[in-house]
Amino acid sequence: MRAAVMRSGRLVVADVPVPEPGPGEVLVKTLACGICGSDLHTLKHADKLVEASRRAGSAFTMDLARDVVMGHEFCAEIVEHGPETRRALTVGTRVCSRPSLIRRDGPRTVGYSNETPGGYGEYMRLTEALLLEVPNGLGTEQAALTEPMAVGLHAVNRARLEADDAPLVVGCGPVGLAVIAALRLRGVRPVVAADFSPRRRELAVTLGADVIVDPAARTPWESWREVAAWRDASRAPQLPPWVPGPPLRPAVVFECVGVPGVIDQLMSASPRGTRIVVVGVCMEPDTIHPFFGISKELNLQFVLGYTPEEFAATLRHIAEGEIPAAPLITGAVGLEGVAQAFGDLASPERHVKILVEPWR
Amino acid sequence: MRAAVMRSGRLVVADVPVPEPGPGEVLVKTLACGICGSDLHTLKHADKLVEASRRAGSAFTMDLARDVVMGHEFCAEIVEHGPETRRALTVGTRVCSRPSLIRRDGPRTVGYSNETPGGYGEYMRLTEALLLEVPNGLGTEQAALTEPMAVGLHAVNRARLEADDAPLVVGCGPVGLAVIAALRLRGVRPVVAADFSPRRRELAVTLGADVIVDPAARTPWESWREVAAWRDASRAPQLPPWVPGPPLRPAVVFECVGVPGVIDQLMSASPRGTRIVVVGVCMEPDTIHPFFGISKELNLQFVLGYTPEEFAATLRHIAEGEIPAAPLITGAVGLEGVAQAFGDLASPERHVKILVEPWR
Repeated sequence: MRAAVMRSGRLVVADVPVPEPGPGEVLVKTLACGICGSDLHTLKHADKLVEASRRAGSAFTMDLARDVVMGHEFCAEIVEHGPETRRALTVGTRVCSRPSLIRRDGPRTVGYSNETPGGYGEYMRLTEALLLEVPNGLGTEQAALTEPMAVGLHAVNRARLEADDAPLVVGCGPVGLAVIAALRLRGVRPVVAADFSPRRRELAVTLGADVIVDPAARTPWESWREVAAWRDASRAPQLPPWVPGPPLRPAVVFECVGVPGVIDQLMSASPRGTRIVVVGVCMEPDTIHPFFGISKELNLQFVLGYTPEEFAATLRHIAEGEIPAAPLITGAVGLEGVAQAFGDLASPERHVKILVEPWR
Repeated sequence: MRAAVMRSGRLVVADVPVPEPGPGEVLVKTLACGICGSDLHTLKHADKLVEASRRAGSAFTMDLARDVVMGHEFCAEIVEHGPETRRALTVGTRVCSRPSLIRRDGPRTVGYSNETPGGYGEYMRLTEALLLEVPNGLGTEQAALTEPMAVGLHAVNRARLEADDAPLVVGCGPVGLAVIAALRLRGVRPVVAADFSPRRRELAVTLGADVIVDPAARTPWESWREVAAWRDASRAPQLPPWVPGPPLRPAVVFECVGVPGVIDQLMSASPRGTRIVVVGVCMEPDTIHPFFGISKELNLQFVLGYTPEEFAATLRHIAEGEIPAAPLITGAVGLEGVAQAFGDLASPERHVKILVEPWR
């Protein structure tokens, strides 16, 4: 089959073997697969990712001397059932799935592995038990956004939000936008969101942000402070007389940038007691000042992925129009266009989410 | 008065003015004052502390060109009441206090300030409203340990411990020992504690550790895994068949070392979902791999100090023998011995807590 292959740190279109579905697995045809920021990081820092994964005992262990077909945000169509399958979903059914194979000896990642090609190729093998049928009437393109939008839902669930918490979303790429959509779905308001790109700030509003900030013009915390008064003033803590201004709600900031320096910047600027939810995936070493955390008793919650329930719920929310996914899609390419698309995604003004359509 | 003064990065005994108690303040005579690891760090990294404090908006802002009398773990005796005092506690009463002055225009730190000398001097001024009388029969030396032991109580309170959490204490200096005592007081068991020093491991057992580890011989996590089985096996999560060994209770690790590199080491070695409570005060920049945190969804809770209630409760617990403080005291010096004591504390085999007795 044809695929956009990561080979020696570059993306090339090549012929690779069609994966063979094992017991309990199905062969699917990739209809659309989103390009994820993590894939961009991986192409650039694959060696660091593999080394960090090895040290952390995590699943992203590839042999970089061999081909890898990335792509883990997909909508696909069932082509063939492997052995020991139940076949409740028939050939031709459109499906989404978490990008994992469940094997008897453990899970495998789809898209960060030498053996299990991801959605930047014509075919994939998937675990039948993980397949979710795309609801009638939901477009393939939107269904392919289930994975990244589930990341936002999970981050918001893991934030342990309480009624008075006031959120700030830093970074309005796909991850930040997914967090904004999930906050809005949950009725958390106002949502303050910051990004240097005017286009992304506009999208933040479309997805549900109430207040947007250009960090080049003012600090996001300034905007946050203007809107973070207590909803129920009688519940606000009494401040000592020397503290200026009204008491502010507890801050929960979602770090959705994922490059070195941002965590420390947030630690330095956050009000006392802030919870920082780290959703952006920074694959490089990073410098922090523990003293910022200590002196303000900050909390850092790192998050990754989603639960099976969150993934399924996200697909439903998209189908029911409760999570707007379509506005994120800014382009589509065939396999020949993947390398170029990786480059284009570096510009936040032009693109948010580009879909790869291998059969295009 | 005579005091051990931080001057140009060194400790010298010098004559400094006796502080004047302001409205609501009392003058006290320092009976005993513990030397804190933070004071050791401050002497070494005062410029970094002041710079980090400035950036984080915290209270440790001293002019390093001028004298500072450190010392914030004290027991003292009331000498004289300032204006606008209630005088419920009479002259001669032994007292403890949080190391803060409450002023109309905001709080001041005692011991990290040019204006408010701490316990390494003969006299201090304290806020009357914060004074706690030392219960009859409790020794001055033990009462002076209220402050460091309250740090442990606070860290354990902020850890949001649940019934099945299994703790690991990394570093058994005064902070780690205080955490161990607080865990034991709360009935959390087994407590696994790690330190390179045989003497400190012995003290860990005295304070309540069930299992001690020499990190030079084996990783603390190995020992932790041996004892972290579920208490109520029926509540343990079901593990997939490929995961070896029994399911383990959630890990809560208390970082009580406070030097660069330890947080990242713990992030790298921790099991998935571990909560890391950062109690050690690292004043230097530190490098972490966010990817370790992300791939295992770790949580970092930075903590500092204690609430007024926790401070008062700690004094009561010490007086009632529920928090053993006496074993920590390994030496006492007069003002002339403070500089030497700072050096001696670098060796964990010889000392844990040295008390300064300015009138000795």
